[in-house]
Amino acid sequence: MNNCSWCNLTDEDRKYLLYENQYWSVYLADEQDYVGRCIVVSRRHCASLAELDSTEWESLRTVIQMVEGCLKEVLGADVCNWSCLMNDFYKTSEPDPHLHMHCRPRFGKPVIINGNEYTDEEFGHHYAPRKKTQLQDADRESLFAILKQRFGT
Amino acid sequence: MNNCSWCNLTDEDRKYLLYENQYWSVYLADEQDYVGRCIVVSRRHCASLAELDSTEWESLRTVIQMVEGCLKEVLGADVCNWSCLMNDFYKTSEPDPHLHMHCRPRFGKPVIINGNEYTDEEFGHHYAPRKKTQLQDADRESLFAILKQRFGT
Repeated sequence: MNNCSWCNLTDEDRKYLLYENQYWSVYLADEQDYVGRCIVVSRRHCASLAELDSTEWESLRTVIQMVEGCLKEVLGADVCNWSCLMNDFYKTSEPDPHLHMHCRPRFGKPVIINGNEYTDEEFGHHYAPRKKTQLQDADRESLFAILKQRFGT
Repeated sequence: MNNCSWCNLTDEDRKYLLYENQYWSVYLADEQDYVGRCIVVSRRHCASLAELDSTEWESLRTVIQMVEGCLKEVLGADVCNWSCLMNDFYKTSEPDPHLHMHCRPRFGKPVIINGNEYTDEEFGHHYAPRKKTQLQDADRESLFAILKQRFGT
C-alpha cells in the first residue's frame, strides 16, 4: 500500500478527476482510445471485486449508473464496455493490486468534439486492447470540461 | 426478449451450468481460451449493469465471490479478469442486449488437468480477445465436474 501508485496519486495524476465519493474516484482516462473512456478507482487499497465490502459494492452501483448515464447522455454512447482486469500488477514478483475498472463507451455513430469527428471503427466488436489515443489534446480538455460539468450536477 | 437467445436457452445450451440462484446463472464458457473461463448471466432480460435493481446487484456480489473463490481455490488462479461488454448485440439494427459478464481466470503457473499442461502465455498482460479454445474435450469434462462439485458445496 505504501508503494502503491494508486494510493499515492499526485495532483498531476488527479488532474482529470471527474467525480469522487467516500469509496470511489472517477477519472477521464489518459488513454482516450475510445472517446470518453473513464477509470473507476477504489479509494481503499483492495485487491479484487470479491473483496469489496457491502457498502463499497452498493456505492459502486451508483457510480456505474452515473458514469453510464453521463456517457450515454453527453456523448451518445450506445453501450459501455466495463472491464476489471488488474493484469499489470502481475508483472511483478509480489503483486499488490489496487482495484479499478475501465469503462470504454462505444459508438455506432461518430462523436464530434470541436468539429473533429471520432469514429469507433470496432463498434459491434471487442475493443482493441492496444489502440492508441484518438483524441486531440484540445478536444480532451473540452471533453473533460463537459463531463466534469455533468458529473457536478 | 421473445427473440433473445439468452432468454431461450436449450437444455444443450445449459449443459455446462455450474450454479444458479434466483437472479444469476453461472456457466463454464464454451470458449476455454483461458482454463476455467466462466460466464455469469442475468436471469432477467436486462440491458446493462446500470439497470440492475438493488437485489440483483447484491446477489451479483455473492456470485462474483463464489466464482473468484472457486477459480482461485480449485485451479490456483492468480487473478480473475472480469468484463461486461455486450458488443455482439450491437451488430444488429435493433440491439436488445442481455446482461452477462465474462470471467477469465489468469495463471502465473501452468494448470494441469489429466496430466495435460495449460500455460497462460499472456499472463501479466491483457487477455487475447480472439484466442482459440485451449482445453481438450476430455479435460473440459473433467474441469466441469470438478468445478460443479465445488459450486455444489
